[in-house]
Amino acid sequence: MLRAEHIGIAVKDLSISIPLFEKLLNTPCYKMESVESEKVNTAFFQKGETKIELLESPDENSVIAKFIERKGEGMHHIAFEVENIEKEIKRLMAEGFQVLNEVPRKGADNKLVCFLHPKGTNGVLIELCQGIQ
Amino acid sequence: MLRAEHIGIAVKDLSISIPLFEKLLNTPCYKMESVESEKVNTAFFQKGETKIELLESPDENSVIAKFIERKGEGMHHIAFEVENIEKEIKRLMAEGFQVLNEVPRKGADNKLVCFLHPKGTNGVLIELCQGIQ
Repeated sequence: MLRAEHIGIAVKDLSISIPLFEKLLNTPCYKMESVESEKVNTAFFQKGETKIELLESPDENSVIAKFIERKGEGMHHIAFEVENIEKEIKRLMAEGFQVLNEVPRKGADNKLVCFLHPKGTNGVLIELCQGIQ
Repeated sequence: MLRAEHIGIAVKDLSISIPLFEKLLNTPCYKMESVESEKVNTAFFQKGETKIELLESPDENSVIAKFIERKGEGMHHIAFEVENIEKEIKRLMAEGFQVLNEVPRKGADNKLVCFLHPKGTNGVLIELCQGIQ
């Protein structure tokens, strides 16, 4: 794992949260992107080498909507950039972590991604991500 | 706000979570520190320019113990490094954010810190921090 690439935050309504985070972080939202497979709309902010990714879902059966229903809006995951995602998945499985996507899938921001089950990581949902060349 | 300086994670027991995060992040815990005013013990890991700070409290009346009781172990706060904490507090108050420490106080890792109320930041507890010279 190289660095914290982004921090994902679950929100109910991007139209409210984007201007809020623009004021908070004192930087404009530089990109919005929808990921249909995840039923999620995202908005990105850059601070240093780490991004803040806001996640909103219009679908009440989506992972994000269920998270908000259970826990309220707030921090949802930490994504770490890795050099070689297949190699890192193997390393983590060998260490006993439960990998939710043994074959990495296409996520937002042109990345291959994989999640670890939060039960094995003190309740923290961890994403691994690697930029697609 | 300059960058995500650290991500704080509330855990029940550092003696379990330190070796877990050493395996997860593939890097050793480089520092432990107790902050008596906060009734908290901390452990730090570095990944790129961002730190992971594990927070454990032996006191059931502490903020961390109550957080874990309410929400379980997991992500607790995001800390952003700022250049001038007094100036940033003024900017955020003028933008309507609720600042929990109008006068910054001494936190872990030799820093002046200040928190924003999560009700005004989509449920995310935000810390501002500035290194003490």
